[in-house]
Amino acid sequence: MIKKRLEALRNLMSERNIDVYMVPTSDFHQTEAVGSYFKAREYMSGFTGSEGILVVTMDEAALWVDGRYFIQAEKQLKGSTIVKMEMDQPGVPTIEEYIVERIPSEGVLGFDGRVVNAHLAMALDEAVLDKMASIACEEDLVGMIWEDRPSLPTGEAWLLTEERCGESSASKIEKLQTYLEENNCDMQILSTLDDIAWLTNMRGSDVENFPVVLAFMVVTPAEKILFMDENKLSGELAAQFEKDGIEIRPYEGIYEFVAGVNNIETVLVNLNTLNYKIYSNIHPDIEIIDDFSPTQLWKACKNQVELENTRNAHIKDCIAQTKFIYWLKHNVAKGGITEISAAEKLLQLRQEQEGFIDLSFETISAYMANAAAAHYHPTADDCAELKPEGFYLVDSGGHYCDGSTDTTRTIVLGPVTDQMKLHFTAILRGMIRLSKAKFLYGCNGRNLDILCRGVIWDMGLNYRHGTGHGVGHLSTIHEEPNGFRWKEVEGINDGAILEVGMVTSNEPALYFEGEYGIRTENEIVVQKDFENEFGQFMKFETLTFVPIDREAIDKSLMTADEIQWLNEYHAEVYSKISPFLSEEEAAWLKEVTAEI
Amino acid sequence: MIKKRLEALRNLMSERNIDVYMVPTSDFHQTEAVGSYFKAREYMSGFTGSEGILVVTMDEAALWVDGRYFIQAEKQLKGSTIVKMEMDQPGVPTIEEYIVERIPSEGVLGFDGRVVNAHLAMALDEAVLDKMASIACEEDLVGMIWEDRPSLPTGEAWLLTEERCGESSASKIEKLQTYLEENNCDMQILSTLDDIAWLTNMRGSDVENFPVVLAFMVVTPAEKILFMDENKLSGELAAQFEKDGIEIRPYEGIYEFVAGVNNIETVLVNLNTLNYKIYSNIHPDIEIIDDFSPTQLWKACKNQVELENTRNAHIKDCIAQTKFIYWLKHNVAKGGITEISAAEKLLQLRQEQEGFIDLSFETISAYMANAAAAHYHPTADDCAELKPEGFYLVDSGGHYCDGSTDTTRTIVLGPVTDQMKLHFTAILRGMIRLSKAKFLYGCNGRNLDILCRGVIWDMGLNYRHGTGHGVGHLSTIHEEPNGFRWKEVEGINDGAILEVGMVTSNEPALYFEGEYGIRTENEIVVQKDFENEFGQFMKFETLTFVPIDREAIDKSLMTADEIQWLNEYHAEVYSKISPFLSEEEAAWLKEVTAEI
Repeated sequence: MIKKRLEALRNLMSERNIDVYMVPTSDFHQTEAVGSYFKAREYMSGFTGSEGILVVTMDEAALWVDGRYFIQAEKQLKGSTIVKMEMDQPGVPTIEEYIVERIPSEGVLGFDGRVVNAHLAMALDEAVLDKMASIACEEDLVGMIWEDRPSLPTGEAWLLTEERCGESSASKIEKLQTYLEENNCDMQILSTLDDIAWLTNMRGSDVENFPVVLAFMVVTPAEKILFMDENKLSGELAAQFEKDGIEIRPYEGIYEFVAGVNNIETVLVNLNTLNYKIYSNIHPDIEIIDDFSPTQLWKACKNQVELENTRNAHIKDCIAQTKFIYWLKHNVAKGGITEISAAEKLLQLRQEQEGFIDLSFETISAYMANAAAAHYHPTADDCAELKPEGFYLVDSGGHYCDGSTDTTRTIVLGPVTDQMKLHFTAILRGMIRLSKAKFLYGCNGRNLDILCRGVIWDMGLNYRHGTGHGVGHLSTIHEEPNGFRWKEVEGINDGAILEVGMVTSNEPALYFEGEYGIRTENEIVVQKDFENEFGQFMKFETLTFVPIDREAIDKSLMTADEIQWLNEYHAEVYSKISPFLSEEEAAWLKEVTAEI
Repeated sequence: MIKKRLEALRNLMSERNIDVYMVPTSDFHQTEAVGSYFKAREYMSGFTGSEGILVVTMDEAALWVDGRYFIQAEKQLKGSTIVKMEMDQPGVPTIEEYIVERIPSEGVLGFDGRVVNAHLAMALDEAVLDKMASIACEEDLVGMIWEDRPSLPTGEAWLLTEERCGESSASKIEKLQTYLEENNCDMQILSTLDDIAWLTNMRGSDVENFPVVLAFMVVTPAEKILFMDENKLSGELAAQFEKDGIEIRPYEGIYEFVAGVNNIETVLVNLNTLNYKIYSNIHPDIEIIDDFSPTQLWKACKNQVELENTRNAHIKDCIAQTKFIYWLKHNVAKGGITEISAAEKLLQLRQEQEGFIDLSFETISAYMANAAAAHYHPTADDCAELKPEGFYLVDSGGHYCDGSTDTTRTIVLGPVTDQMKLHFTAILRGMIRLSKAKFLYGCNGRNLDILCRGVIWDMGLNYRHGTGHGVGHLSTIHEEPNGFRWKEVEGINDGAILEVGMVTSNEPALYFEGEYGIRTENEIVVQKDFENEFGQFMKFETLTFVPIDREAIDKSLMTADEIQWLNEYHAEVYSKISPFLSEEEAAWLKEVTAEI
């Protein structure tokens, strides 16, 4: 099937004299996960991971994937003729190198300019210049061969009330307008859906698992224009926008609008996320200020109302997860539970919670060796049955009316080896050490990462991803600019100073290909500790309260203060969650949260 | 006395219509410690610390000092009319703010352009522009009133042979010339003494405690010119320079030489260290590439020969220190030992070691409360007697023919409180945690600092300096670009990736004003550990082997692996040092290095 699609694409390329065609994983906004309309790369390659870039020439095709997906891509590309390229591994060419190598002199590189960010497009343009090659970015070739392509989403856009988010859109936009004036920006073009959702307090269902709305927004000191499908607006939201003076224009109208702007001197955009087509339409006399939107930092620092709501959402989500673990432990020996049916059970338990909206990302439900792929998702064809032995890893979360969650637990289903306990305990120690960190204001995630990762490094091991990412509030689940990561990764802006209210995941892991994977993840939020002569000390508040499987803990490997943290944590899990459980469940929770 | 000097300076200012005169702490090279000829700020203020900037107006005077010197400056400025300014503390103006506030419209700011770096001078020039004020930098007013000013040093400059440093000057300069060509630099002006010492393998005695020579150097792809007092050259060094084609010109000739250069397009300089007078002489058509000298990184990565020599030097220095601790512990009760006489005894023990050249910095010899000033130095007027109780802190080091050292020990002289033990143990734990760190290649000191400092932060405490600095090889004792520091400090470039061969100090500390100070410092050098699928793991090798006072250790506060590290360290101290001790000393060392 993939071969036929590649053939059809190559026919179109041939007709247009396009030598190399690039299919990235993106919508028009560089959203991390994309709705079904935008799954062109998946359609063309069969690879279902959340990231990856496909490059097709007349006789070759290659897919670049990062460390999370090395194993999954290997499996899914089988028989497709597409070669897997492991990003950042020695000897593997970059996409740019690959394209430059293959494009003929005076050749043409094609892509849909709406789904490639301006920085990447400019870099490619520069790179193929040596070969006198040019870029064709006006046509969406995959769209032309994709017969049963899903339509753009049409779900309702609704208002996240001030009781839920703590600040009116009018107040946020006013703050932004002041910022623009103070920084000599005559206009900002916002193209990222999470920033627009935060700024307008609008939520929707346009992206799978992210309650945001497909839209662009233009803000000037005087104007605020939202480019989106007006039919989606709920009555409440339409009224609010009218009251706030937010003008609505058609979604695709952004391109023509930008092309018509010629009376300003400066425009603030982020070329890492702005799509190339919009960028190309900016009048060449306008000075481009290429920077992060200030909304990114404002959004990341959750206010007291958001935090109070988030705490509620987490309790509900943790109840569902705790019930799930109880159910799994008591039923796995009976047989018949698969990775998919387990995930469905967990979804059902979440749905029973008040105000549940959606999963906050596709559940990672992975038994033993399947969990060695950090972002494994079972499929109907390839789905393991859970047995009463070893580890089962579940990384999942939900959006509720009051907030969003992201948790991972590795659950003992039966006998585990000493080595598995050694690894589980190491992960847990790292997670605890970061959770209980005390640090002076001014630290960022680069400073703190080794508290967690150092336990793993001491064993000569590593996990090839950040220790944690910022978590959005009824938005994208991965959020910048905060995170825990020891060194900068190109394109990821997660080294911000840790500010009060920033919610970040804390998720160390270990992966052993062919054997098992372990990850333990809580969400933590930055809070002030005390201030003294040395400055403002900071600490983390834990938001997630789900039991950590004591059956895989080797207490002898832990320090006294780590044991104390765990015991206090488990006591809190019990006190917060047990009131919402059945008698049997509560009795079980008492046992599994007892002191070690 | 200080008041009279200020009056004399103000008279000269008045004659020249200078409204504000700045006296920094610098030689013509921005060397960290300066020879006696250059101690203009000390002469004018009475403050003897290694850093500080004095600003004098017609009716006020203020001295900016950093956290190390808050206490010392308080004492030494008493009665001087000079106000102490605590840098980076809330409410304290910066030097720039202070000057801008006080300089009259169309006024004049004066300083000696040879002792102010180009960046600072440019910033000040810019800052006073609002007041239409100008800068006068041609005259050294302090020099004019300083009657008994010491002369410039005249000591011999000698060759550090390849057996000691592992690489010929010819090879280093060739590497630099290749770098300049590859980076399109037509010329580099080197003005920092440590870079010139490394590049030429020349050493001398021009700066107290730093065996370097006052010189400037110009390197082009074809030329290598050294501006220095030719009379200093030893016969061996003169012959080597002639052989290598290094041209010698007069020290002060650099200004005229630079003024005459007009046939190049680009020049590499570091405006943070280049003096303003040289900068002003660069032809305006020449493009200035303002960057660190590549020699900084090359110099920091000690080669195998340097490391082998450094290990020797450390053993000798550690023998002297161990003998000193033995002597001190056995004599303090007799009375009569002062901070100064203790430091003299330690110097004498170092002098007994083969190849001893000089102290590598002025010994910090501080009893109890005096150690609360991180960089305290006793003076004849203000010198405590050591008593058989509490802590004595000694931070000292030596230059030997084969390398340089920097060590701190806090020594128990008699009864100490539980709180003192608590603090001593915390410092030790931090020092150990950093020493035994294992980390992937790519980490820098920002990533690792919390391993050490985190122990202190957990107690709500802090030390207001880096955890460690790069250590020079027969050069300046503080060396960039490596270090351990959690956040960037302006003007300090110590965030480089930790490379094999970088020698760094590891010196956590705690200071309690009016009570005591504790610091424990080893030098450690970056080495490769094993490489595996995750990358190259790195580790530290410890260079310093001096017993750590077990009498102040509370073992119950330490983790098992920290205890293990200490016991193994002490076993190594005994095996390396005891062969060089008397029978009594060795027996004592056996006891004090026994397992805890």
